[in-house]
Amino acid sequence: MIEPFIYDHWYICAWREELTTKPLQRWILDQPIALFRTESGDPAAIADRCPHRGAPLTSGTVRGEALECGYHGLTFDKSGKCVRVPGRDSVPPTFRTRAYPIVEKWRFAFIWMGDPDKADESKIPDYHWSDDENWSARGETLPVNCHASLLRDNLLDLSHAHYVHANTLATDAVVRVPIEVEERSDEVIVQRRMVDIHPSPFFSRVLGDFDGKVNHLQVVRFLPASNIIIEVSVSSVENPEHKAEIRVMNGLTPATGRSSHYFWSLARNMHLNNDSLGDWIFNANRNTFFEDIDIVEQQQVLLEKAPAPEHETLFHVDGGVNAGRKLHARLLAEENSSAD
Amino acid sequence: MIEPFIYDHWYICAWREELTTKPLQRWILDQPIALFRTESGDPAAIADRCPHRGAPLTSGTVRGEALECGYHGLTFDKSGKCVRVPGRDSVPPTFRTRAYPIVEKWRFAFIWMGDPDKADESKIPDYHWSDDENWSARGETLPVNCHASLLRDNLLDLSHAHYVHANTLATDAVVRVPIEVEERSDEVIVQRRMVDIHPSPFFSRVLGDFDGKVNHLQVVRFLPASNIIIEVSVSSVENPEHKAEIRVMNGLTPATGRSSHYFWSLARNMHLNNDSLGDWIFNANRNTFFEDIDIVEQQQVLLEKAPAPEHETLFHVDGGVNAGRKLHARLLAEENSSAD
Amino acid sequence: MIEPFIYDHWYICAWREELTTKPLQRWILDQPIALFRTESGDPAAIADRCPHRGAPLTSGTVRGEALECGYHGLTFDKSGKCVRVPGRDSVPPTFRTRAYPIVEKWRFAFIWMGDPDKADESKIPDYHWSDDENWSARGETLPVNCHASLLRDNLLDLSHAHYVHANTLATDAVVRVPIEVEERSDEVIVQRRMVDIHPSPFFSRVLGDFDGKVNHLQVVRFLPASNIIIEVSVSSVENPEHKAEIRVMNGLTPATGRSSHYFWSLARNMHLNNDSLGDWIFNANRNTFFEDIDIVEQQQVLLEKAPAPEHETLFHVDGGVNAGRKLHARLLAEENSSAD
Repeated sequence: MIEPFIYDHWYICAWREELTTKPLQRWILDQPIALFRTESGDPAAIADRCPHRGAPLTSGTVRGEALECGYHGLTFDKSGKCVRVPGRDSVPPTFRTRAYPIVEKWRFAFIWMGDPDKADESKIPDYHWSDDENWSARGETLPVNCHASLLRDNLLDLSHAHYVHANTLATDAVVRVPIEVEERSDEVIVQRRMVDIHPSPFFSRVLGDFDGKVNHLQVVRFLPASNIIIEVSVSSVENPEHKAEIRVMNGLTPATGRSSHYFWSLARNMHLNNDSLGDWIFNANRNTFFEDIDIVEQQQVLLEKAPAPEHETLFHVDGGVNAGRKLHARLLAEENSSAD
Repeated sequence: MIEPFIYDHWYICAWREELTTKPLQRWILDQPIALFRTESGDPAAIADRCPHRGAPLTSGTVRGEALECGYHGLTFDKSGKCVRVPGRDSVPPTFRTRAYPIVEKWRFAFIWMGDPDKADESKIPDYHWSDDENWSARGETLPVNCHASLLRDNLLDLSHAHYVHANTLATDAVVRVPIEVEERSDEVIVQRRMVDIHPSPFFSRVLGDFDGKVNHLQVVRFLPASNIIIEVSVSSVENPEHKAEIRVMNGLTPATGRSSHYFWSLARNMHLNNDSLGDWIFNANRNTFFEDIDIVEQQQVLLEKAPAPEHETLFHVDGGVNAGRKLHARLLAEENSSAD
Repeated sequence: MIEPFIYDHWYICAWREELTTKPLQRWILDQPIALFRTESGDPAAIADRCPHRGAPLTSGTVRGEALECGYHGLTFDKSGKCVRVPGRDSVPPTFRTRAYPIVEKWRFAFIWMGDPDKADESKIPDYHWSDDENWSARGETLPVNCHASLLRDNLLDLSHAHYVHANTLATDAVVRVPIEVEERSDEVIVQRRMVDIHPSPFFSRVLGDFDGKVNHLQVVRFLPASNIIIEVSVSSVENPEHKAEIRVMNGLTPATGRSSHYFWSLARNMHLNNDSLGDWIFNANRNTFFEDIDIVEQQQVLLEKAPAPEHETLFHVDGGVNAGRKLHARLLAEENSSAD
């Protein structure tokens, strides 16, 4: 159950506005990372440990294009190279800390935790709607005390809504209508098409306190190792033009083996200037996530503290979970074999 | 010193009023237990881990005679059998979580942590005075951060009163008068008979600010694994009819190897309707327990953090402690050999 | 990097005024110590674990020349010998807890953690200025969550002042002027002589808001295992009589492998009666230490939580650190070989 990390992957490490000339320490895949922006504006991610005496570089200060350690002033540029040792005229040429590829795209900064030679930006998933004038998006980072895989399993599993989110997302149809799982080489797609149903409390509100019947399509896409995109489209049966679409980006970045940074952003393509609706959607969604977090953190406690004599038993409703685990395992095996 | 648990035993797991249709998670012997009452009123204790995906069942809701998991709605009855998998018409017949025998008696619920075939209700000790019209009883549950054996040792050892409870239970006689230890096949009895002594501050008050001489009999009975009954009788030397009796039930239920649920209840058979005396006795007793808890929690810290080069050295005053440890060890050995 | 403790050494365990008839538990070198003063005034340090049942002796009370356990009243004198077992007429002659040599000198109590036969008081370093009418001294104990070696490294390394203490002790000269390291058989001396420089903010104030040029001599002496003495002399270039001297005693006593008691005391030999200057110096110095503590505690977190693939790389500025580590390692090897 304790799934190893995939390293050759772009993980969301920060919101772009978090990268400033004030350095930020963030643990990712059990590694301390110094995130900062140089004075000319470049993003940087380097190992947050000075190779001199082991102090965190984030104790220090950005000077021009580099980060000066707060202990003895040794200074490292965004490539990880040491460019200054106070009291010395020169710097040993191989003296450096590790640098991680980092890319800013839309509202996020992505870090590549594996082999830098494989850090291909085209592998970053399409999150354009999180930063697009046709969409209104809002999100946040939630700290979660569990292994990131428990969050992924939660999101790949649309069936829990009836139980965990009884007051917000539940519809009877979630239980009645079976899911469809599509396994692609680099993606798992889970869908549920609910036709001619009563809208959930959430979508009733989004559609303007609508109480007619709707068609409701949920698509959950897992792009390993850490991305899950939820696309929901709900339209009136009588008037298909009366509809709402949302996109939720979920970036599940492991901090350690028992804690995660959960980046999420929800975008809608209607009522773009209705701030009170936006506030309501944001708060409804985060309350939904709080319900999920409550469950997955309890799972984590049981995993850590109690022996589990039984294996898990997966049912049809777990098709997405199962496919997601298989895809993670296959990519992990490929990464390990290519590293040999 | 770290004594293994005995499993074939009725441990107090709750006060009866704690069992409701709102499920309660309680750790017992390092296992998470879901305690609840069905809608028809039956008590239930099942392993608090859904065999589907490992969520705690106590995240959910009692539905009729069963508990529905808060994650995906799988539903388990009090026998541990799964009676519903949402989205499926049938349930795999062997799909279940572990059930534990549970019995309500007097004011308590007892759980059997070992082999269910051995769960004989007649092994529950007689606590009738905790729920009897001739007695007035009151108690509570105290969380204690130590191995339950340290609490047992504390209670089997009447000699600490002079030091730990100097302001409440101490009498000089506690140190002067030797204890008598009787070792039975399934019980240890420790007695101290103090004749013609000044009463302790506690019993002086219970007897009505009495300042004459008293005869004071203490009997401590250890019924392994977790029950200790203290019976105290104090009577005026001049007028033996002027006397007070109390019974204290101590249920020492291990939560983990380093924490315990300490259930206690004190009953008196005089001044039954004197609530202010009842309040005073309850508070005096719990303050006494707080003094004990302070010591045993400090013992636990030393046990965990510091190497103990010396073995313990036991003296005559430890006769009860020693007999209690021996009895626990013998029953543990019998349990283990019968399990082979 | 995780340096073993040296045991044959006088560690500061308390300020003298902390030793009273109310016993004090303090962890030193991973051992729980009961520190107290007998009624006749003698200091005492004995293992804080009753050999009877493992309770901490500090739960109890000083009675005359001995400490009575708070659990069962067993009583131990300052030599560790048990002098009373309640309920017994005699005490087994070999029944004892460990005693540690303890010496009061100047304002401190020193404990010897190793072989008592080697506890030679003449090995206590000269701290007379912490308690001398020609000096005004003030200090405190700071709890620090790191291995004591990180504090030693910090103090043997004068070069960090420019970065860690930019607002108090920094002068450009700290970086420009190289240090001189002298390695003696039982001491490391690190000096920096800064001639004709602008005073640091701290010394400008101490010299009376002086803004002329000064000669500034820093001497840091490491006397293993735990003593670091900082001697600073700053005098006006124009008028060498206008000068200030300070002595800082740093006692770095390991509590555990990841926490320390940092005893410090700063003495000055001028303006002895100027309390407001004294307050300012005390607060300026402790604020400086808080800056150091912030760094070393972050180092400790990295040491514990993150793998350190790279070795440390030491530079010329680390001459003192390197010499200190070598001296500690040599004395440790000598202690271990003599123990064979």
